[in-house]
Amino acid sequence: MAEDGNLHIGNSNYNREEEADPENNTMNQPLLKRHRTLSSTPLALVGTKVSHIESLDYEINENDLFKHDWRSRSKAQVFQYIFAKWTLACLVGLLTGLIATLINLAVENIAGYKLLAVGYYIAQDRYLTGLLIFTGANLGLTLVATVLVVVFAPTAAGPGIPEIKAYLNGVDTPNMFGATTMIVKIVGSIGAVAAGLDLGKEGPLVHIGSCIASLLGQGGPDNHRIKWRWLRYFNNDRDRRDLITCGSASGVCAAFRSPVGGVLFALEEVATWWRSALLWRTFFSTAVVVVVLRAFIEICNSGKCGLFGKGGLIMFDVSHVEVRYHAVDIIPVTLIGVFGGILGSLYNHLLHKVLRLYNLINQKGKIHKVLLSLSVSLFTSVCLYGLPFLAECKPCNPSIDEACPTNGRSGNFKQFNCPNGYYNDLATLFLTTNDDAVRNVFSSNTPNEFGMVSLWIYFGLYCILGLITFGIATPSGLFLPIILMGSAYGRMLGTVMGSYTKIDQGLYAVLGAASLMAGSMRMTVSLCVIFLELTNNLLLLPITMFVLLIAKTVGDSFNLSIYEIILHLKGLPFLEANPEPWMRNLTVGELVDAKPPVITLRGVEKVANIVDALRNTTHNAFPVLDGEHVDNGAGTELHGLILRAHLVKVLKKRWFLNEKRRTEEWEVREKFTPVELAEREDNFDDVAITSSEMQMYVDLHPLTNTTPYTVVQSMSVAKALVLFRSVGLRHLLVVPKIQASGMSPVIGILTRQDLRAYNILQAFPHLDKHNSGKLR
Amino acid sequence: MAEDGNLHIGNSNYNREEEADPENNTMNQPLLKRHRTLSSTPLALVGTKVSHIESLDYEINENDLFKHDWRSRSKAQVFQYIFAKWTLACLVGLLTGLIATLINLAVENIAGYKLLAVGYYIAQDRYLTGLLIFTGANLGLTLVATVLVVVFAPTAAGPGIPEIKAYLNGVDTPNMFGATTMIVKIVGSIGAVAAGLDLGKEGPLVHIGSCIASLLGQGGPDNHRIKWRWLRYFNNDRDRRDLITCGSASGVCAAFRSPVGGVLFALEEVATWWRSALLWRTFFSTAVVVVVLRAFIEICNSGKCGLFGKGGLIMFDVSHVEVRYHAVDIIPVTLIGVFGGILGSLYNHLLHKVLRLYNLINQKGKIHKVLLSLSVSLFTSVCLYGLPFLAECKPCNPSIDEACPTNGRSGNFKQFNCPNGYYNDLATLFLTTNDDAVRNVFSSNTPNEFGMVSLWIYFGLYCILGLITFGIATPSGLFLPIILMGSAYGRMLGTVMGSYTKIDQGLYAVLGAASLMAGSMRMTVSLCVIFLELTNNLLLLPITMFVLLIAKTVGDSFNLSIYEIILHLKGLPFLEANPEPWMRNLTVGELVDAKPPVITLRGVEKVANIVDALRNTTHNAFPVLDGEHVDNGAGTELHGLILRAHLVKVLKKRWFLNEKRRTEEWEVREKFTPVELAEREDNFDDVAITSSEMQMYVDLHPLTNTTPYTVVQSMSVAKALVLFRSVGLRHLLVVPKIQASGMSPVIGILTRQDLRAYNILQAFPHLDKHNSGKLR
Repeated sequence: MAEDGNLHIGNSNYNREEEADPENNTMNQPLLKRHRTLSSTPLALVGTKVSHIESLDYEINENDLFKHDWRSRSKAQVFQYIFAKWTLACLVGLLTGLIATLINLAVENIAGYKLLAVGYYIAQDRYLTGLLIFTGANLGLTLVATVLVVVFAPTAAGPGIPEIKAYLNGVDTPNMFGATTMIVKIVGSIGAVAAGLDLGKEGPLVHIGSCIASLLGQGGPDNHRIKWRWLRYFNNDRDRRDLITCGSASGVCAAFRSPVGGVLFALEEVATWWRSALLWRTFFSTAVVVVVLRAFIEICNSGKCGLFGKGGLIMFDVSHVEVRYHAVDIIPVTLIGVFGGILGSLYNHLLHKVLRLYNLINQKGKIHKVLLSLSVSLFTSVCLYGLPFLAECKPCNPSIDEACPTNGRSGNFKQFNCPNGYYNDLATLFLTTNDDAVRNVFSSNTPNEFGMVSLWIYFGLYCILGLITFGIATPSGLFLPIILMGSAYGRMLGTVMGSYTKIDQGLYAVLGAASLMAGSMRMTVSLCVIFLELTNNLLLLPITMFVLLIAKTVGDSFNLSIYEIILHLKGLPFLEANPEPWMRNLTVGELVDAKPPVITLRGVEKVANIVDALRNTTHNAFPVLDGEHVDNGAGTELHGLILRAHLVKVLKKRWFLNEKRRTEEWEVREKFTPVELAEREDNFDDVAITSSEMQMYVDLHPLTNTTPYTVVQSMSVAKALVLFRSVGLRHLLVVPKIQASGMSPVIGILTRQDLRAYNILQAFPHLDKHNSGKLR
Repeated sequence: MAEDGNLHIGNSNYNREEEADPENNTMNQPLLKRHRTLSSTPLALVGTKVSHIESLDYEINENDLFKHDWRSRSKAQVFQYIFAKWTLACLVGLLTGLIATLINLAVENIAGYKLLAVGYYIAQDRYLTGLLIFTGANLGLTLVATVLVVVFAPTAAGPGIPEIKAYLNGVDTPNMFGATTMIVKIVGSIGAVAAGLDLGKEGPLVHIGSCIASLLGQGGPDNHRIKWRWLRYFNNDRDRRDLITCGSASGVCAAFRSPVGGVLFALEEVATWWRSALLWRTFFSTAVVVVVLRAFIEICNSGKCGLFGKGGLIMFDVSHVEVRYHAVDIIPVTLIGVFGGILGSLYNHLLHKVLRLYNLINQKGKIHKVLLSLSVSLFTSVCLYGLPFLAECKPCNPSIDEACPTNGRSGNFKQFNCPNGYYNDLATLFLTTNDDAVRNVFSSNTPNEFGMVSLWIYFGLYCILGLITFGIATPSGLFLPIILMGSAYGRMLGTVMGSYTKIDQGLYAVLGAASLMAGSMRMTVSLCVIFLELTNNLLLLPITMFVLLIAKTVGDSFNLSIYEIILHLKGLPFLEANPEPWMRNLTVGELVDAKPPVITLRGVEKVANIVDALRNTTHNAFPVLDGEHVDNGAGTELHGLILRAHLVKVLKKRWFLNEKRRTEEWEVREKFTPVELAEREDNFDDVAITSSEMQMYVDLHPLTNTTPYTVVQSMSVAKALVLFRSVGLRHLLVVPKIQASGMSPVIGILTRQDLRAYNILQAFPHLDKHNSGKLR
């Protein structure tokens, strides 16, 4: 029963709203250390902060009030619900599109003016001034991003995708989808990307989309919610889950201008439960995003967006490239895939190590987090500015009809320190925004634009930056760093293979990026479609599929995907789709035996006992037993399961009885509405109960969910896990095989934490013998 | 408990292999008549034949033997399983690709030579001879297709997609995935499409892909299975389901050359359960299909495929069309979507009526089926040949650099009865294969190619043909008829709107086809991707999404999707994802009360009782009770659930005991292997049991699934249905709320049929008051 397993004895009223910042409380438990009991602590790293986590509850809570609610739900209410659902889906798309537009505009303009200023001094050969301006601006932007994150919203650090994935799997992380988090994420993302750090705005956009969805669903920020009547239907975990799925799909769509890719990303990577109806709603959201982005591009094409260029959101359009490939091209393509798989899994492995180290640094306090970010920014700036001096100046090729050399903020052939008529190929890749760098390295019909030495430097630098940047306390996406790395080795392979095949070097870069993404993130269909929509060239489809499948297969044979590694590292209790094989040899009865005994309540219970149960445990549900001799468990029967939130409601409303009796249905309905009971808020700090009230009674029957899911103790953990995950449970009651008198009708409750492979193996280490020893 | 609810009393041993052909037995129940009890008959229309259907069982069957099996499964066996899984996925793709190639080659060549011969006589003005040859050839081809279907495989009629959808939902239909069905489907499809009937090869290809998958998984046709050791892992419903999903995705991919669309079709339309791992495997299969098709196109480009033209499989490539659209274009695009939705739902409504009528005709016997097909073929041929005479000859436009007029089998400007320099626009659409007709009507940069009168005739004819052709006893897909209709009204709208917008008329035709598909089939994401991959033009994506969403929304407000209508019409017990609202007001206890009492067995049971239970019922599982007084239900406990198949195994192996005792584990393992128990075969006709054996005992404990899923009687049907469908159950045990002594520990079993809305409403008509009265 220990979903929230740490017991707070006596009156130390445990406040679940309390934020567990490692700097100021005693819950500072390194995530790498774990308990050797079945009941692990419900702590996880959310953003860069250790927080208490909760489970979500998708079970239909069947009690008298709920049934009453359903009997009275009219056609008008059903219409309201459907209308509100689609309006929200539309709004999610609209707002995500607008915010993505805003971020793009801000990044392009801030980074653009910065690069123009730097270019101005370089053109005058005042390299040191240029370096100072470049470094100073980047440090300033990084500082803004980091301080915002560290002070106001530690949960806004990182991409947020692992936490969303966990949320949709049923793990609620506090402050993850709040208004503060969203605003910090937006501003922080602008700062971090404009600072030229090796991170993307794609992951953060997914998180922003989810925040928008969550805020819309609950009617605004926590403290200023709009109590619109129609929104009450969304005050449950199921509808919130659907909205957040729409939000994450919209985010990917806004990041890559890829509506189908966004839907598939949500489906393949993020979501745990899926329905056809949701597919359609998600698709609607992404369609709205595309319309917004298209309108924005039309406006910007008329030059009203400052330095925002024409290419803008269409990141790497290679639709004009004629794609030719034949049977012989299978060899280089296979090579790209294999390398992508190996490099991707190697990246995952090393990033895991770096993140563990960073966690230790970040836990030392806020100053350490800021200093770490600034160091990374300083290193990045110096490398980006200094390394191009190592490259040789290359003469412009007059047969190519692009401007060469260029001095502006974008352009494929940067002059930098070179004489007129020459360009510096490394400056083309380094002294620009990350988006432009990708576009340049993807550029087609420009063989030999980049020298081999430059490509090696580019590859090496982004390998280092990709490892050291991700863990800092700013919003940071993983897509772009991986695309940068992958494009580098793809183009290198293309240069080496140049004489062997006729595939364009830009295409090699695209395929390299795709293969490294597959090798690290292990997605297939969604990546394939995203690349299809990014490159705008359908003839690339078969070859992309081939590369992705190879890279994923190779990667899977080494380790887990990067998101799964981060999930493990953060300690988020994600339930996998398939049970481990050894789970078939363990019964839920054995699992329950390894836990403290279950705490039960009686159908008509004394107030004092309820207060005790709430104060002394953090359990979220209590079995309700009926019968004469509940205390010794004899002759009793299971009436159902009552939620902590409902008990708190009872105490707050002081629905106490003077005598021990069952209540009538109208008594309950007078006191509680189904909408109230749907609320999750369950803080009972401010409830003061007098000692005379303590001796009164509460009839729990009408509020009890009379049909909780139960399993017999002899069921294997594997089978119970299938049930738990398929139906989306929070609590699973274990009942004895033989219902003998003298025994309690319920022998335990299993929660998400109890069913996690890692936790079970801590309590039953002998089961681990067949384990392949991958990352734990 | 009445999954198979008709009781056969006494020794009238009910043989479930027996085929229920309406012509020769008494089970001839019109599908439109239904029983007024909860337990409906397990009959459904499969293809054009009324058959017994069974449920599939995805539950993990936990008994002593199963546990033993899992404890001993080695790493090598796990590797074998994974290797075999991927090999099968590859083979599914490979074979589907090859068969699709074969069908395409055959159709193009047969239809091509037919059209050439007709053209030869037309050029000589011998119109009547042309008509006779055209009609005769079409009748002959139709006859072949129909006779094959009627005589050898009635299940090969129609597209097969509804049955596959039902299979993946857990409904097993006999003879659906056999070798005969597949061969008839291939040959019949070639005949029907080459006969110029208004049907496509797309649906049948999905069925063929699924047949291949199923046959590969079981090691060949039913009578000649290869007993390869590695295939034993696939002898269960779960792995078979995964394979068939791969097969259906491969089929769509082969039909439209659309790998991502195929995966999404399987996901959105066909599959009920889905996992990320399956996404990846399905994608692998479709990738293989694409490679096969690509190789085939390369070979055909060198002219080795007879009349198979260059365009071949790339049906409607509009990648060279420049797409321009702006905000004003939203009006015609909305119009297309709205019309598509209205026409699509109207088509669904009318087709429903026609199919009901056809069912009555088809049930009259084989001759009627053949005559119906031939009449449709005759009507089609006469119309296709005769109507072009109504069109005016139009002068060739010299500014278009296509051949005009043409006389060959393909070409956009057919001369037909016109003088040189003129073409007949209706002949261009009618006297060609369906694929070419679509390509012609989609052709871009040819404004005013088709006159308004011709388009009206074309639209009207294909509306009629689309309604009357689908239900005949040949393999027939729905995609192409709908594309033909939709393209017609799209192009008409384009001609009307011509002066208003700059959208190409070919694009209007494409959008019209898309909108009608969405209006009838109600798919969104998969259709969008299929059209994207068909038209090879990514800029169409936003506009296509918009049209599809509008058309689906409009259509959904009128009736169900065409596949759901067919599912209902065929009586396939498909379980919807969402329970009906009124299901929350009914408990499973009430449901169970409306059924005959459950038949239980004792833990150690007399052989005679087992034989009785098997002979007198068709139930597929029996609860096993333990305790002293099982007969009156007092003091008993539920041991578990035993499957019919396992009881038959016990009888066949004569595992009888002389005295009433529990057995040891080794005794069972000596007699049965887990592989044997996984087999579904359960025909016990040939088991003769002597009267002395009848008095012996069987210990059912070791073979009993000790952990069946149970729900308490007070659970609502809605909640039980969520469990039933999420976990993929076949039987759900209902236990009493209060486990009082003197009561049976199990009060009933619910199966798929019991949980269907339609069946429940028959027994509880008062629940229907809120029902919106859509198709039942």
